[in-house]
Amino acid sequence: MKKIYLNELKNYYDKEVEVSGFVENIRDLQWVQFVILKDITGKVQITIEKSEEKNKNLVELISNLPLESTIKVKGKVIENPKVKLNGMELVPEEIKITSTSDMELPFNYKDPNSVNLDTRLDYRFIDLRNDKNLLLFQVQSTLVKYMREYLYNNKFTEIHTPKLIGAASESGSEVFEVKYFDRKAYLAQSPQFYKQMAMSSGFERIFEVAPCFRAENSNTSKHATEFTSFDVEFSYIDSVDDVMNLEAEMLEYGLRNLKSEMGEKIKEIFGIEITVPTLPFPKMKLSEIYEELETRYNYKVDDCEKNDLTTEAERLCKKLSIDKFNSEFLFVTDFPAEKRAFYHMRDENGILQGYDLIWGGIEITTGAQREHRYEEIVKNAKEKGLDEDVRFYLEFFKYGCPPHGGFAIGVDRLTMLLLDIPSVKESMFLFRGPNRLNP
Amino acid sequence: MKKIYLNELKNYYDKEVEVSGFVENIRDLQWVQFVILKDITGKVQITIEKSEEKNKNLVELISNLPLESTIKVKGKVIENPKVKLNGMELVPEEIKITSTSDMELPFNYKDPNSVNLDTRLDYRFIDLRNDKNLLLFQVQSTLVKYMREYLYNNKFTEIHTPKLIGAASESGSEVFEVKYFDRKAYLAQSPQFYKQMAMSSGFERIFEVAPCFRAENSNTSKHATEFTSFDVEFSYIDSVDDVMNLEAEMLEYGLRNLKSEMGEKIKEIFGIEITVPTLPFPKMKLSEIYEELETRYNYKVDDCEKNDLTTEAERLCKKLSIDKFNSEFLFVTDFPAEKRAFYHMRDENGILQGYDLIWGGIEITTGAQREHRYEEIVKNAKEKGLDEDVRFYLEFFKYGCPPHGGFAIGVDRLTMLLLDIPSVKESMFLFRGPNRLNP
Repeated sequence: MKKIYLNELKNYYDKEVEVSGFVENIRDLQWVQFVILKDITGKVQITIEKSEEKNKNLVELISNLPLESTIKVKGKVIENPKVKLNGMELVPEEIKITSTSDMELPFNYKDPNSVNLDTRLDYRFIDLRNDKNLLLFQVQSTLVKYMREYLYNNKFTEIHTPKLIGAASESGSEVFEVKYFDRKAYLAQSPQFYKQMAMSSGFERIFEVAPCFRAENSNTSKHATEFTSFDVEFSYIDSVDDVMNLEAEMLEYGLRNLKSEMGEKIKEIFGIEITVPTLPFPKMKLSEIYEELETRYNYKVDDCEKNDLTTEAERLCKKLSIDKFNSEFLFVTDFPAEKRAFYHMRDENGILQGYDLIWGGIEITTGAQREHRYEEIVKNAKEKGLDEDVRFYLEFFKYGCPPHGGFAIGVDRLTMLLLDIPSVKESMFLFRGPNRLNP
Repeated sequence: MKKIYLNELKNYYDKEVEVSGFVENIRDLQWVQFVILKDITGKVQITIEKSEEKNKNLVELISNLPLESTIKVKGKVIENPKVKLNGMELVPEEIKITSTSDMELPFNYKDPNSVNLDTRLDYRFIDLRNDKNLLLFQVQSTLVKYMREYLYNNKFTEIHTPKLIGAASESGSEVFEVKYFDRKAYLAQSPQFYKQMAMSSGFERIFEVAPCFRAENSNTSKHATEFTSFDVEFSYIDSVDDVMNLEAEMLEYGLRNLKSEMGEKIKEIFGIEITVPTLPFPKMKLSEIYEELETRYNYKVDDCEKNDLTTEAERLCKKLSIDKFNSEFLFVTDFPAEKRAFYHMRDENGILQGYDLIWGGIEITTGAQREHRYEEIVKNAKEKGLDEDVRFYLEFFKYGCPPHGGFAIGVDRLTMLLLDIPSVKESMFLFRGPNRLNP
């Protein structure tokens, strides 16, 4: 008999079905037992009348069944408006226990605030049973699915670049060292150099969704030592505007399709209405932002801080972007070159051709047109004192390399902002930080 | 002006277009210059008549242009049956050099056999410019796209499990050690334990496409220290047959759609006709295979070797599977439990509920129903002397965990077999082995 998902039961009234799931709750009353069964699509009430002779075995089975066990149920679906849960119930003929939860749960995952975050992370496999967490990862998967779909539709190729690298190149201090046979290797902080290698190889339009590793000894709601990065790079751009526009279109496509597929469920479980952004996303120069933050909200900072977005300025961009453009997203451009990576292109006036994308007051992307001219990229690397470390990378630009640009989005951070989760520790499957490597 | 891809030019006869690409070849004759331009979709001949006064600047530009530079061309598309390449030519009005290849290439990538493999891997960014390599990664991306699509269509969620782990658990000897602040971490050999954790968390059907790391000091055509694994795990299975059937359906879906989207191009560039497999894939017990190999091909091995597939037996399975079933794919089952991982389920007779999938004489998958019963999995771990190391994993089965199973496919190996590439070193973007960490 084909397994039916619980959200499909409404198509099977008065029919026999087979369903499977976790036993989320049991109410054992004088005349009747109610069991709440849960699968990845929803829940259903199973009703067992104690008075019926044929139910004798079922009643005994349920009486002794610990919550959180898993069962397989054969029975008939009955429409019943009196049942609060979806107006239906399942009247079982046969129940088979497929696994037993013999122990008391280490904490009540239905009430996550009853314990501290560390306990929940220690028992993450239990914590994830919470309805919100199950949905969170379905949402993440669906959003990434549509972002990929946008790229496939636009001739992008997915690549898989190595995470084991020979030199601690991009910035030595935050790189994990690996014992690699009789020598050392390092873990890639980002696929940046290899994305650009693909441009030099003529791959033209590529993306990668893969782990990145950062040996930062910091403990914030936004940082992790390992996270999933959604990386895009593409060739034959005319300017950094092409990069920003493609990113905006990809996010719009992803959010629009996510809302259409899961918007109702997200509203039900998280109480959040997904906003599909309007294209194009607004753009502001860094200096304009500080001017407007002062004029509008009387936010003042010293000039010496104005070469980057302060955390508070980043936060205020949420309000600014809504007030000025009615947009949740805001591109910030024209950062000073000395604060950014050497591979970002500068124009003839030294203006950096890169950007940050701010969503809800938090940076979710750094993007840029890259420097693809050999002489220029060598000069930039020398200026930062990196030319020896990145020599293998500089080679990529010697033999012809089209103008190109790209960006990276942190998938965990994106999920956190989308669903208003307090920390990336809770928007990734298993968080990794300086003090956390388990489970 | 919107950039047009070269495979779209046939829709633009007598129209003005803008195209971009690498200059693959130039023939500078007495009266005319022919330039072969290449992008990710194809090639076109650009024709410049030297006698025409308006072409003076173009002629000079092309005369001085090194091969492998990239250009942007505005011009008119002309149908011309005399041109061998697609029966058309592009007559340019304007050519802009977007990057210059100033150096002689380190080797001729169009003739990969002119140098040894190590030289090609040293200059992989040049090697990848070969037409076959460009197509190889488009094929890999497309096949993975359709395998994912099959899973999305069947209610699977994509997850991202950590690669940094706290204990060298699955089998300590082949694990890379990472310096992790003031302690040690290890790189995950596979997402096995975390895939199963997702089952315990009620995620029910998940997959992951991510790097795996193996510290094996071996140098074969099938092994790498880092590779991309396509991992699937799902709950509420009745037996290992459900796992084999889902894998076969996924591969059939992937290959069928790949052929429909790219079959022509694969035939043109690789001379290979993609075979869409017939469902279901045939299954044979390990012992049956040795019997048939002896009967059919007089292949004999000592009984002591018959507890696993020898390399030669694996190779002969290609012939056996074709001769007996007319199938390229063959599931091999009933391996002895002592040769396999402790988390594979055994039935009441001790028969292992796992399998290998052989394609073209090479194993591409190990799959199994997993042991989900707490008492049994603890017993199995103890038998292998692993119970201390995997204690965190054993916890996953204490609080209810549905019956489940899954498999993993090496994406690089799959690509190698699909396109008849001699080694995974050439079917991954950048190979990593004991002696290779660069570029």
